[in-house]
Amino acid sequence: MSQLQINEVAPRDGLQIEARFVPTADKIRWIDDLSATGLARIEATSFTSPKAIPNLADAAEVVVGIQRRSGVEITVLVPNLKGCERALACGVDEINLVMSASDSHGLANLRMTPEQSLAQFETIVAKAQGSGVFVNASLSTAFGCPFEGDVPQERVLALVERLLGLGIQGVTLCDTTGMADPAQVGELCRAVTARWPQTPFTLHFHNTRGMGLANALAAWQAGITRFDAALGGLGGCPYAPGATGNVCTEDLVHMFERMGVATGVDLDALLAVSAKLPDLVGHATPGQVVKAGKADRRYPMPQRG
Amino acid sequence: MSQLQINEVAPRDGLQIEARFVPTADKIRWIDDLSATGLARIEATSFTSPKAIPNLADAAEVVVGIQRRSGVEITVLVPNLKGCERALACGVDEINLVMSASDSHGLANLRMTPEQSLAQFETIVAKAQGSGVFVNASLSTAFGCPFEGDVPQERVLALVERLLGLGIQGVTLCDTTGMADPAQVGELCRAVTARWPQTPFTLHFHNTRGMGLANALAAWQAGITRFDAALGGLGGCPYAPGATGNVCTEDLVHMFERMGVATGVDLDALLAVSAKLPDLVGHATPGQVVKAGKADRRYPMPQRG
Repeated sequence: MSQLQINEVAPRDGLQIEARFVPTADKIRWIDDLSATGLARIEATSFTSPKAIPNLADAAEVVVGIQRRSGVEITVLVPNLKGCERALACGVDEINLVMSASDSHGLANLRMTPEQSLAQFETIVAKAQGSGVFVNASLSTAFGCPFEGDVPQERVLALVERLLGLGIQGVTLCDTTGMADPAQVGELCRAVTARWPQTPFTLHFHNTRGMGLANALAAWQAGITRFDAALGGLGGCPYAPGATGNVCTEDLVHMFERMGVATGVDLDALLAVSAKLPDLVGHATPGQVVKAGKADRRYPMPQRG
Repeated sequence: MSQLQINEVAPRDGLQIEARFVPTADKIRWIDDLSATGLARIEATSFTSPKAIPNLADAAEVVVGIQRRSGVEITVLVPNLKGCERALACGVDEINLVMSASDSHGLANLRMTPEQSLAQFETIVAKAQGSGVFVNASLSTAFGCPFEGDVPQERVLALVERLLGLGIQGVTLCDTTGMADPAQVGELCRAVTARWPQTPFTLHFHNTRGMGLANALAAWQAGITRFDAALGGLGGCPYAPGATGNVCTEDLVHMFERMGVATGVDLDALLAVSAKLPDLVGHATPGQVVKAGKADRRYPMPQRG
C-alpha cells in the first residue's frame, strides 16, 4: 500500500456545483481515466434527489457504467436511506454519509441539525450492515462554520465518538469553506489519531484562502494518510461565493511525491486527465501544476541578442 | 518585535516584470500605504540599469519620495557597485545583493556565474562598510534551477559560507521558480539555522506549483522567522512562463495570524491596499484572501423558498 491514499472527489464534490450538466458518457469516460492513474478511491457521484442536484441525476448509470479496477475503491455520497438503497443496488465499495458539525450549516445544506443527521445515520447503517460495503461519514464544518464561526474541537470529538458508536467505520473531517489553518489542523488530527488510532480518518480541505496544501502538510505531519482532493481544484461552496475549490488533486500528489511520500498515483497520467478538464466543464480550473509543469520541468536557456 | 518579520517585495520583484510602467507618484503612494500596515521591511525598488528594467528606472525618486516610518526598514536591490553607490546616496536601511546558486541561471539572469557574483560582492561590501547600511544577499535557485535542475544542498551551504565570509550580514534563500517542496525546505532551513544560529536568514518562495504557504510553514517549523512576500502574489520569472508569482503577502500573514503567530501586520489594512492593486497594475492578481475574505468572515444563512 502507498503511504498516502487519495480519494478523488471531483466527480461528486466538483460536478455538483458546476453550471452545466456533464453528459453521462463523458462522466464515465472521465472516471475511467481517473481510475487508471492509481488513485486509491474515487467518489463517483451522489445518490441524492435529481431535483436537489440535477448535475448528478445520473448516479446509477454512472456507477454501473464505469470500469471497476482492482485497487480503486468506488465510493458514493448517500444523503438518506433511499440513497443508500439505490447505492447498494449498484454495487459500490463504500458509502459516504454527510452531516454538519454546526447546526446552521446542517440546516442550510441538508435541512437537518446534527442530531437529526445522527438519527438518520442509524437507519442507514442498519441497512448497510451485512452488505460488505464500507460506511464512511463526512463531517462538514469540522474546522469552522461560515455562518456560526468557530466550531469547538470538543464538539467535533464528541460527534466523531457518536459516529463511531453508530458503527460507522471511517470519518472524514471536512474544512468545508477553507477556514482551517495548519495549527488547528495539526491539533485536531493529533487528537483524533491519538484517541482512535485504528479508525481511518480522511482530511478534506478547500483552498479558499490558499492554505489547502499547508493544511494537508500539517495533517500528514500529525499522522493522517488519507486525503480528499478534486482534480483541477474543482468544487466550492454555494454559501461562500468567491471561494476557490477543493484542494487540487494533482497539486497535492505533486507536493507529496516531491517530498518522497508515495501516493501510488501516476502523476503524469493524472496531469493528462487534468489537462482535458477545462473542456469537460467548460471553464479554466485553478490547479497550478498542470499549468506550470512539475517542479522537475527544465526550461531552455534564454537566447541573448 | 513580532514573531515574524515580513519583507514586502512587490514594489521590486512584482513591478519589475509587469507589462506597464507604474507612474512614480503612484509607486510612492502605494509604498507609503504598505508602510502604514506594519510590515517590517519593504524592498522598494532596484538600483539597476534603466535599460535592463525600465519599470524601475525611477529608483532614486521612489526612495527619496517615500515616507520613512520608524520600524519599517527600506531595502533595495543593488546589482553592482554603481547601484550600491546610487542606493547609499539615497539613504536606504539595507541593500540586497543578488546572485544565483547555479551557473546557468546566473548567466541567464545576471550575465554572471556565482564566482563572478562573489567577486563583485567583495567590492560592494567594501563600499558599504562604515555606512551603517545592512548588507543582505539573495541566493537565487537555492532550491533548484529551471535550467539545470537540482542544486545540491552542499553547494548552497558552501555559497552561504562564502557570502558570510565576505561580511554579508543576512542571506535570503530563494525558491526562484517554485521548485521547492516542504521536505527540502525543512532540511535546508534546519541546516542553516543550526550552522549559523546568529545569522538572519530570510526565505523567499514562489507559489508556482501551489506550495508557497506549505513551504513557508515548513520553514517556520524549522526556525525561520523572516519571509519575503509580494502583495497580491505579484511577480513571476521571465524564464518560467506560465508560472504564478511570489507567495502572496496577505495570504501568508493571514495563515500565520490564524495560527497565532504574530506578524506585526494589520491584515485589514493590508487587504485594503491589496484590493486596490488590480487598478495599479492593470490586471487581476492571484491572492486569495482578498477575494474570499478572512477565515473569520461570516455569511448570512441562505433563504429557503
